[in-house]
Amino acid sequence: MRDLVEIGMGRTARRAYELDDIEIIPSRRTRSSKDVSTTWQIDAYRFDIPLITHPTDAIVSPGTAVAVGELGGLGVLNAEGLWARHGDVDEALFRLVQATEDNDDPGAAVKVLQELHAAPLRMDLIAEAIKQIRESGVTVAARVSPQRAAELTPDLLAAGVEILVVQGTIISAEHVSRDGEPLNLKSFIADLDVPVIAGGVGDYRTAMHLMRTGAAGVIVGYGYTPGVTTTDSVLGIGVPMATAIADAAAARRDYLDETGGRYVHVIADGGVTTSGDVAKSIACGADAVMLGEPLAAATEAPGQGLYWTAASAHPSVPRSLVAEAVDQELDLRKLLFGPSSDPRGVTNLFGALKRAMAKTGYSDLKEFQKVGLTIRG
Amino acid sequence: MRDLVEIGMGRTARRAYELDDIEIIPSRRTRSSKDVSTTWQIDAYRFDIPLITHPTDAIVSPGTAVAVGELGGLGVLNAEGLWARHGDVDEALFRLVQATEDNDDPGAAVKVLQELHAAPLRMDLIAEAIKQIRESGVTVAARVSPQRAAELTPDLLAAGVEILVVQGTIISAEHVSRDGEPLNLKSFIADLDVPVIAGGVGDYRTAMHLMRTGAAGVIVGYGYTPGVTTTDSVLGIGVPMATAIADAAAARRDYLDETGGRYVHVIADGGVTTSGDVAKSIACGADAVMLGEPLAAATEAPGQGLYWTAASAHPSVPRSLVAEAVDQELDLRKLLFGPSSDPRGVTNLFGALKRAMAKTGYSDLKEFQKVGLTIRG
Amino acid sequence: MRDLVEIGMGRTARRAYELDDIEIIPSRRTRSSKDVSTTWQIDAYRFDIPLITHPTDAIVSPGTAVAVGELGGLGVLNAEGLWARHGDVDEALFRLVQATEDNDDPGAAVKVLQELHAAPLRMDLIAEAIKQIRESGVTVAARVSPQRAAELTPDLLAAGVEILVVQGTIISAEHVSRDGEPLNLKSFIADLDVPVIAGGVGDYRTAMHLMRTGAAGVIVGYGYTPGVTTTDSVLGIGVPMATAIADAAAARRDYLDETGGRYVHVIADGGVTTSGDVAKSIACGADAVMLGEPLAAATEAPGQGLYWTAASAHPSVPRSLVAEAVDQELDLRKLLFGPSSDPRGVTNLFGALKRAMAKTGYSDLKEFQKVGLTIRG
Amino acid sequence: MRDLVEIGMGRTARRAYELDDIEIIPSRRTRSSKDVSTTWQIDAYRFDIPLITHPTDAIVSPGTAVAVGELGGLGVLNAEGLWARHGDVDEALFRLVQATEDNDDPGAAVKVLQELHAAPLRMDLIAEAIKQIRESGVTVAARVSPQRAAELTPDLLAAGVEILVVQGTIISAEHVSRDGEPLNLKSFIADLDVPVIAGGVGDYRTAMHLMRTGAAGVIVGYGYTPGVTTTDSVLGIGVPMATAIADAAAARRDYLDETGGRYVHVIADGGVTTSGDVAKSIACGADAVMLGEPLAAATEAPGQGLYWTAASAHPSVPRSLVAEAVDQELDLRKLLFGPSSDPRGVTNLFGALKRAMAKTGYSDLKEFQKVGLTIRG
Repeated sequence: MRDLVEIGMGRTARRAYELDDIEIIPSRRTRSSKDVSTTWQIDAYRFDIPLITHPTDAIVSPGTAVAVGELGGLGVLNAEGLWARHGDVDEALFRLVQATEDNDDPGAAVKVLQELHAAPLRMDLIAEAIKQIRESGVTVAARVSPQRAAELTPDLLAAGVEILVVQGTIISAEHVSRDGEPLNLKSFIADLDVPVIAGGVGDYRTAMHLMRTGAAGVIVGYGYTPGVTTTDSVLGIGVPMATAIADAAAARRDYLDETGGRYVHVIADGGVTTSGDVAKSIACGADAVMLGEPLAAATEAPGQGLYWTAASAHPSVPRSLVAEAVDQELDLRKLLFGPSSDPRGVTNLFGALKRAMAKTGYSDLKEFQKVGLTIRG
Repeated sequence: MRDLVEIGMGRTARRAYELDDIEIIPSRRTRSSKDVSTTWQIDAYRFDIPLITHPTDAIVSPGTAVAVGELGGLGVLNAEGLWARHGDVDEALFRLVQATEDNDDPGAAVKVLQELHAAPLRMDLIAEAIKQIRESGVTVAARVSPQRAAELTPDLLAAGVEILVVQGTIISAEHVSRDGEPLNLKSFIADLDVPVIAGGVGDYRTAMHLMRTGAAGVIVGYGYTPGVTTTDSVLGIGVPMATAIADAAAARRDYLDETGGRYVHVIADGGVTTSGDVAKSIACGADAVMLGEPLAAATEAPGQGLYWTAASAHPSVPRSLVAEAVDQELDLRKLLFGPSSDPRGVTNLFGALKRAMAKTGYSDLKEFQKVGLTIRG
Repeated sequence: MRDLVEIGMGRTARRAYELDDIEIIPSRRTRSSKDVSTTWQIDAYRFDIPLITHPTDAIVSPGTAVAVGELGGLGVLNAEGLWARHGDVDEALFRLVQATEDNDDPGAAVKVLQELHAAPLRMDLIAEAIKQIRESGVTVAARVSPQRAAELTPDLLAAGVEILVVQGTIISAEHVSRDGEPLNLKSFIADLDVPVIAGGVGDYRTAMHLMRTGAAGVIVGYGYTPGVTTTDSVLGIGVPMATAIADAAAARRDYLDETGGRYVHVIADGGVTTSGDVAKSIACGADAVMLGEPLAAATEAPGQGLYWTAASAHPSVPRSLVAEAVDQELDLRKLLFGPSSDPRGVTNLFGALKRAMAKTGYSDLKEFQKVGLTIRG
Repeated sequence: MRDLVEIGMGRTARRAYELDDIEIIPSRRTRSSKDVSTTWQIDAYRFDIPLITHPTDAIVSPGTAVAVGELGGLGVLNAEGLWARHGDVDEALFRLVQATEDNDDPGAAVKVLQELHAAPLRMDLIAEAIKQIRESGVTVAARVSPQRAAELTPDLLAAGVEILVVQGTIISAEHVSRDGEPLNLKSFIADLDVPVIAGGVGDYRTAMHLMRTGAAGVIVGYGYTPGVTTTDSVLGIGVPMATAIADAAAARRDYLDETGGRYVHVIADGGVTTSGDVAKSIACGADAVMLGEPLAAATEAPGQGLYWTAASAHPSVPRSLVAEAVDQELDLRKLLFGPSSDPRGVTNLFGALKRAMAKTGYSDLKEFQKVGLTIRG
């Protein structure tokens, strides 16, 4: 049974945990880093590292999508973001940077983002951006919202998208609507020839439902970033990542059994600030991690040192600050693979993952999901 | 059984939770915001949003009571506050603002409030203030203390009060006194033609007793405001809101059963700083929330950016600071309904509530009381 | 059973709680403050308020001992402190104040205290100080250490001491020593005609042993003062006060039963910063509280705004900083009985206690020990 | 059974505790400090105090190793550190100090350390350093990494090392490697004539395996130093010290039983900032403590006020900042034995340990491992 607490008479809440609450504990053999593999494969696509980018314009331009792909991860372009709405994205980002100089009012930059996102989607711009990624030869992935998935997907596929990411802050396989026709994910996915990664979800049941739609991967979380996202303050809603990942991993296991062998990948999106958090995400059961803010430190990141998530641009209920990230002093390669002279866990993100696996004696990601954990008493 | 802890040999304490300890977790379908209703009805009075104002002069003037009413909530004027004692309230508030400029001494502003409250009550002033609200056509509500309820109520009703709020920091249906005659709430309410909302209470038993007096609504809490109220430091007394709301909701359920159908509303008064807290209050079982400090940010709020609760003016044991609130930059409408460019959860308070309900798949407040909750491990 | 936790294999620790962890919860009737009594009696001595001063020179001069007595509490002069060693205490305190001006080195003031305490005890000075208290007509109390109790007590009694306080940081009824003769508290107390208050202790067993020595009162704690005492950092030792008070109250109950009616008072010494903490101490089971730092704010306090405990002067292992207290702006009467314009719980200490008892419906201290408690989840 | 928590469906974590979570609680007799002994013996070597230095160049030069030995502890020189690589260590340290003046970039100093450690090991320098220690007459100890133990040990023994410390951040008796030959600790130790202390480990099983290799002592932890080490951020790995020490003590007990009398010492390396932490380490079951940062305050410490652990110099995944320590104002003798005028628990480290033992009634270290503990509720 779950760990239920009676918060008041007849009302229970479940105890849930963030990645910060847990630590990995070495408890067996050790191993050499060079004997450790971090490769990850979803559908026919194989990656050197279990990295998907969080689809925010702060970190993913067509150029960085290519760079991430060439370094062994999967860059996901937001097909409803600035590159899909503005011919001159540099100018749009310049306006955003300007707005952040008024530090006292956190709303100023959000207002600019809202305005930038009010511009109409232009399929020609999206197609051009995707073409740029495709021509590099890396795997091409783009993100659409559930609301516009049906509308945009045909053109995206025509432009060359190989993996489709259908992502909203919180989505479900059972969206209820009195008027209008919500996305029927199951038939939508059945009609596609490309694998779909869908989310975010926060619990076992919704994860299971999404798996049953035929998704190749399920995203857990909404990109929770301490000091940036404000979903809890705005909506009272939270997705404690350690618990949510473990729950989705349980759904993966049960769905595998239910289907006699269909393995749906669990992709953790939130709570990752350091390389230690990457390791903890896998340790809780994730197959791969979606990284956002840690990549904003790359010199290549379009955000120019700023970080925000897509929820920042919501027209009436924004749920992310436009925050100043760390200085952009390292190129993406160094950020991901080091070597590092910075002991804070913000560089050599996947070199450190390898080392964590080595020090606990695991040789691949799937095994590492079983590593011992402690939580602070 | 409750979650009891033995703090020492033979001495137990009950584990109790604040709204900050919990989070809402999406775990079913999602829904469109436009299919969500936040309407609330108590007795014959129907409101678009489950909002009652905390009866402090910092936020409620006759004018803001009208404004709140016109926006779909219920403004409650303090019938024992500045508008009941001073002909020139602007001058009184000016003295208070002056006193806060000496930031080093938190007692200076409190002393001014104490002096302002030492002026005698004038029924002519109260009647005039209530008349002003009544003439606007919104529902008229006023707050009296248990001590002066019997004395003031006849004139208040004559002036046009439609909902009477009998409120002290902590009240009970069984006030014991060796001399003098305390308020007998049961017979007091039985003699009235208007619905009575009474409180605050902190536990199941007192809530149940108040329900049995015939009150239409029971207030849970004393307006706890982090950084403002100091009841714990002064008296050692606390009312953890998540637990207290859930307990009162249990009393509501049991009383409904006991009476074969009388539904007494639970109104949460405390711990609400953001729209997320509004959602959490309903999620714990509240029918409506009393808002204080969040409304001090409205340009219309008489406190001019200051916030305090009524307990600040107590002549010998004050229990609230006069605190500087956020800048008053938004009108009340925007504060309540947005749209917002501020991602901190302090504007679009009820638009965000709607969205929280939508993202968890609920269509009305009563259903939303069953949403899933987590507490931080 | 106690709430035991296995911190590691085969090693348990008991969960224990500070006053800060708990809160009082109103859960019955309410009552008028004027129907509440805070009187307390130990042996033949009756007090209006359950207040004993912590025997530090920072707050107790002969003059303040008289003032506390006249206000209804019990002042305890340290018979081994500055008034027992220096003819010109003002000059000694001046040296201490000077030393604190070098804020960067916390050792400077401690060094001065160590030097001041290296001066020999002079019985003529002690006798003179006690005479001054005696002549005012208030109850006369003095503190001695276990080490010097046998040596100093005869002269103290001759000088007029009516209640003897035998106090060390942590004492026991079973001090073990290979050479020298430790104090045999049982025979020591049996030979005296005055009541003895002894401590501090931190657990049930030691409290019980001290009760069996014939002490009239047992002190729980060592005067723990956040930001001042450093016993945990220096020795690793802590006495969580909520738990320790409840344990000693259990010993009181069991000893009462064992003796067929001998009631030994439990005096809480530590963790009290505000009036709320006074209420919580009684609520946990204390009969009276020893106050230190809160009284340093009195204009009469000899420490001139500084506060330290006796452990600060230890010659080789000091365990208390000499800390700057709040401004000394109120006289002792106002500090104890108000009225207050300061909502932080630092003035009107016993008026607030009365109010806490009233709001929870209790009329005397003994009953109030049963009030409902919560702990933060 | 261990205290297991289900962090998500089907995934458990063990509750674990740091030294900061616990406190010692006096619960029996008291005793005089002069009747307390802190002597400790491992193999044929006897020490007045249970002190081993953490093998970081920040605190251990040949000179301080001698000083520690003369004061009754065991200094351990890092045989792979600066004294083994640089003829002019002063110049190397000067470069490091210079680099820390650029406070904004924590990587600058780390980079210098990485460069300094890239210089080749020179056996002539190591031999010379060890000779200097040997000539003083104190016990000679040196640290090697598992990777280079086989290579360096013969020369170290030839130079006069009497106790060998084989230490990596996390080591195991079962290092797995596809190529190359890892250290077989069991045969390595069997072939040596000197006692070996090996570690660090974080759990019962690894501790037990190391004990079975024939080690005389097992190091628990990796020198965790708050604000300095960053193993959790970088690798997600943590070793909560209270739990880890207790687990290793359980392994010691079981191994003692298994072997019919072989007692392997448990040496705690991490979490010790104050004398209180020294006491807590022993209380959790340690036989001795490895001290790092607290000794950086000694005037003799080569780090000149800086502190770092060996993991800081890792060429690609550094896990320790080069942090500024407290002012170096006291000589080592005073730091260890006082007398102290500083009440913060940073001086008189072992005088305070003695006093903690006295106040809880224990006369030697082995007994003190049974003292009562509390954890904060």
